[in-house]
Amino acid sequence: MTGAAHGEVQVENERMRVTRWTIEPGGTIPMHRHHHDYAVVPLMTGTMVAVEPDGTEIVVELEQGRSYAREAGAEHRMEHRGDGEPIVFVEVERLD
Amino acid sequence: MTGAAHGEVQVENERMRVTRWTIEPGGTIPMHRHHHDYAVVPLMTGTMVAVEPDGTEIVVELEQGRSYAREAGAEHRMEHRGDGEPIVFVEVERLD
Repeated sequence: MTGAAHGEVQVENERMRVTRWTIEPGGTIPMHRHHHDYAVVPLMTGTMVAVEPDGTEIVVELEQGRSYAREAGAEHRMEHRGDGEPIVFVEVERLD
Repeated sequence: MTGAAHGEVQVENERMRVTRWTIEPGGTIPMHRHHHDYAVVPLMTGTMVAVEPDGTEIVVELEQGRSYAREAGAEHRMEHRGDGEPIVFVEVERLD
């Protein structure tokens, strides 16, 4: 069941794409592969679950303002399995 | 008068540098030149003043989660001229 999740592209040029993602409780960002290195800037504190193609689950503890980065090639869907506040973060992709 | 302002580097590799900046009321990030394209993700809503080398002042209205990007070459100092809450934002630089 894919609940509500949406991405708002805030900046896009040949060098960078900045997207603000919101995942509602019960929502999922469907399976996707990252083609570019990216950083994540959480705008709230909460728990997200990354599910990889082989079913591996990784609990991602988000803390407001504590950023992290990943390399191109990551592939997963992102689930909000909790209730309460939506998960909100900004993703900054380094376009090649 | 340069009040308290500090940057916490949260991620640094050959491709990206992610820094969380905090400017206390009355504080300033001293004059600096950006050598890389960068995006800014505000973690709060407030007003910051950019002062360029020639004295030109640009009021920067920050809104929590509303990102913006700039190209390499920008040169300014950043001032918090208000009172109340510190200015806090995350800067994501695209290293060449």
